Amino acid sequence: MATISPPPDPEADPRVRAVFDDIRATRQTDFINNVWRYLAADPGLLEEVWRDVKAVLATPSALDAKTKEMIYAAVSIANACDYCTHSHLASARARGMTAAEQADLLRVVATASKTNALLNAIRPPVDAAFLAPDPADPNPGTHP
Amino acid sequence: MATISPPPDPEADPRVRAVFDDIRATRQTDFINNVWRYLAADPGLLEEVWRDVKAVLATPSALDAKTKEMIYAAVSIANACDYCTHSHLASARARGMTAAEQADLLRVVATASKTNALLNAIRPPVDAAFLAPDPADPNPGTHP
Amino acid sequence: MATISPPPDPEADPRVRAVFDDIRATRQTDFINNVWRYLAADPGLLEEVWRDVKAVLATPSALDAKTKEMIYAAVSIANACDYCTHSHLASARARGMTAAEQADLLRVVATASKTNALLNAIRPPVDAAFLAPDPADPNPGTHP
Amino acid sequence: MATISPPPDPEADPRVRAVFDDIRATRQTDFINNVWRYLAADPGLLEEVWRDVKAVLATPSALDAKTKEMIYAAVSIANACDYCTHSHLASARARGMTAAEQADLLRVVATASKTNALLNAIRPPVDAAFLAPDPADPNPGTHP
Amino acid sequence: MATISPPPDPEADPRVRAVFDDIRATRQTDFINNVWRYLAADPGLLEEVWRDVKAVLATPSALDAKTKEMIYAAVSIANACDYCTHSHLASARARGMTAAEQADLLRVVATASKTNALLNAIRPPVDAAFLAPDPADPNPGTHP
Amino acid sequence: MATISPPPDPEADPRVRAVFDDIRATRQTDFINNVWRYLAADPGLLEEVWRDVKAVLATPSALDAKTKEMIYAAVSIANACDYCTHSHLASARARGMTAAEQADLLRVVATASKTNALLNAIRPPVDAAFLAPDPADPNPGTHP
Repeated sequence: MATISPPPDPEADPRVRAVFDDIRATRQTDFINNVWRYLAADPGLLEEVWRDVKAVLATPSALDAKTKEMIYAAVSIANACDYCTHSHLASARARGMTAAEQADLLRVVATASKTNALLNAIRPPVDAAFLAPDPADPNPGTHP
Repeated sequence: MATISPPPDPEADPRVRAVFDDIRATRQTDFINNVWRYLAADPGLLEEVWRDVKAVLATPSALDAKTKEMIYAAVSIANACDYCTHSHLASARARGMTAAEQADLLRVVATASKTNALLNAIRPPVDAAFLAPDPADPNPGTHP
Repeated sequence: MATISPPPDPEADPRVRAVFDDIRATRQTDFINNVWRYLAADPGLLEEVWRDVKAVLATPSALDAKTKEMIYAAVSIANACDYCTHSHLASARARGMTAAEQADLLRVVATASKTNALLNAIRPPVDAAFLAPDPADPNPGTHP
Repeated sequence: MATISPPPDPEADPRVRAVFDDIRATRQTDFINNVWRYLAADPGLLEEVWRDVKAVLATPSALDAKTKEMIYAAVSIANACDYCTHSHLASARARGMTAAEQADLLRVVATASKTNALLNAIRPPVDAAFLAPDPADPNPGTHP
Repeated sequence: MATISPPPDPEADPRVRAVFDDIRATRQTDFINNVWRYLAADPGLLEEVWRDVKAVLATPSALDAKTKEMIYAAVSIANACDYCTHSHLASARARGMTAAEQADLLRVVATASKTNALLNAIRPPVDAAFLAPDPADPNPGTHP
Repeated sequence: MATISPPPDPEADPRVRAVFDDIRATRQTDFINNVWRYLAADPGLLEEVWRDVKAVLATPSALDAKTKEMIYAAVSIANACDYCTHSHLASARARGMTAAEQADLLRVVATASKTNALLNAIRPPVDAAFLAPDPADPNPGTHP
């Protein structure tokens, strides 16, 4: 199904091995899912993607890990990414998302997609109350 | 900018008036933003959209209101809906989203969009561990 | 392939049974396709989605049923929804869409997608003749 | 707002003049809307786009002109094309789309977008009944 | 998996045969991939799509064939088209795209998708320096 | 128009100042366009986005800078990002993209979007010749 082949023995490459070791240590599991096995075909890209995902999803920040995985899954659904939808819904469940929370997530994604389409059809002007001011702009509200 | 005209005196229609009254009561504000003023051109559609949005965003459920507004905003960004992005980021802030949480939201949306594109390019098979079983399926894993 | 499991005996739940009975009666067939079997995992969501789809596609309105199914299929193609594309093209055929009409549908969807991309690249201003006036707007044509 | 400049005197170019003349004759109006004025910056592209749009929208075929404009508008909304949404909703009205039919169109587009998102989240297998057989395929139903 | 059936003996139709012959001659291979076998179900559409693809990808123009295939693949990834992603990445490789160039392509697509989402969230005004002037516009910069 | 306010004096923050200095040095211009002025509201995000964009677009790699900007613009068009479309078409021109190359770019993006929609409608199986083998997969071609 894929457009690139994963290397047959990815951890023979020390850069791949280091990323896989960090994935296992960070997630406290031996399971390396397919996205990492396939990205191993390009160690530089593997390092970059893991750095990004770790920074956003595995590093403490203002939002808790479960909420971040749910937002990640919502975007993946909207972008029609099959692999990402499966993996981030699974991650959100692993982070504690309950069945009731998943049902809520689906309802919000579905209703948002409905009103997104409706507003992209009607295209009302954005209320001035919603616009953030730009202190360097002498003529707010008339930008093209 | 819009594709339809809002009625000049929307609350002259009792169905519109009833929805606007419910919006004001539910949100405890006199502010009726443009989406509702424009939808008032079609009272049936106005009633339906308010029913949906109220059910999802203004009714207690498993997820708190702030989290639901953040997910709604994330989907709106992914769907490139200008009006919805402004209004739901503003709603999330009104529900208590802090600047640090908004920064987190943007980071998750941005990183998800990056890996969504990457996985839509590579298209690795979904790991069996992520697939939910179907008890009625005699031959799982070989669906077209 | 799915992210949730359908219940093994969905009609044991009386809410699911009631929706399935209404689907069979409305469509005059015993065939319950997968979307309903999977949504049965969440009876509230099943009821909501069937209510929406029935109101739009199985209730007489200004447009005939075949035309509505064709528009539904066109949107599903644009949104890259695999399941929806299959099911709504099949429904449109069941509503009388001929092979020549389906060929027309594909041509319109393809050409629209081409000019959508081209206009999203060129981004010419919308002609004033296409904009609906807003009676409450003192300064039309200069909205941000 | 645009990314390219329209030529100041487009009809000085005989290729542009010929296309503009054909647009006026086909539509029986003197109004040349912005998409054509801007495409005139590249006469070859102007000719190609007018050929495509004329073939699909201004040539008798299985579907009537109004239905084709409505499908075109639906796709434009789904693809978030501002210019196209305005121009094809206006064209559909010029072809006889009533207010009630436009309301139906918006309802179908909105509901389709909702179920598209929901099914892109749940990802049930496509029912075998919806799949078209391929006579050259020795093993249908097991494609990757 | 498909929504239409390919004809069992497509080249029995002389219009299909002519297109297939031209595909084989243009590409100097006997391999006819599935998109053409399926489009053969509608000879008019087959002719139109081959005419378009040949004009863009198999005709000398300002950009070389490899670069055009890479841009084509990038758009296909962004539009979540499974078939197109596979076929145009394969075509780009057949046109000489190296593994390092494909890695670059994936990096650009991924990073663009990230900043696209971020800018669709922040929605800063477009700098005046980027806007192309319209000589017919008396009031640039204030379009709705 | 934006959802966040840019800081009135961004370079008062030394982290912002360092990024702006690097932008000016890298691009050899004093012009700081709006995306950076607005991102300055979140210095951490500003640093991350500039790091990513610089790594992809301003660092020598297999593809030349002009080609990378053209691919970046193509993805931005497909993702309906107004700001990104303007800025990356402008950057591609600054990197040497000629008018004829820009016309080619638009043709490829438009034709790709047309066939993407068509193939997302028809959904033919991906030819085995396009699939990359996975050495760890005992049963290629039957993945769900």
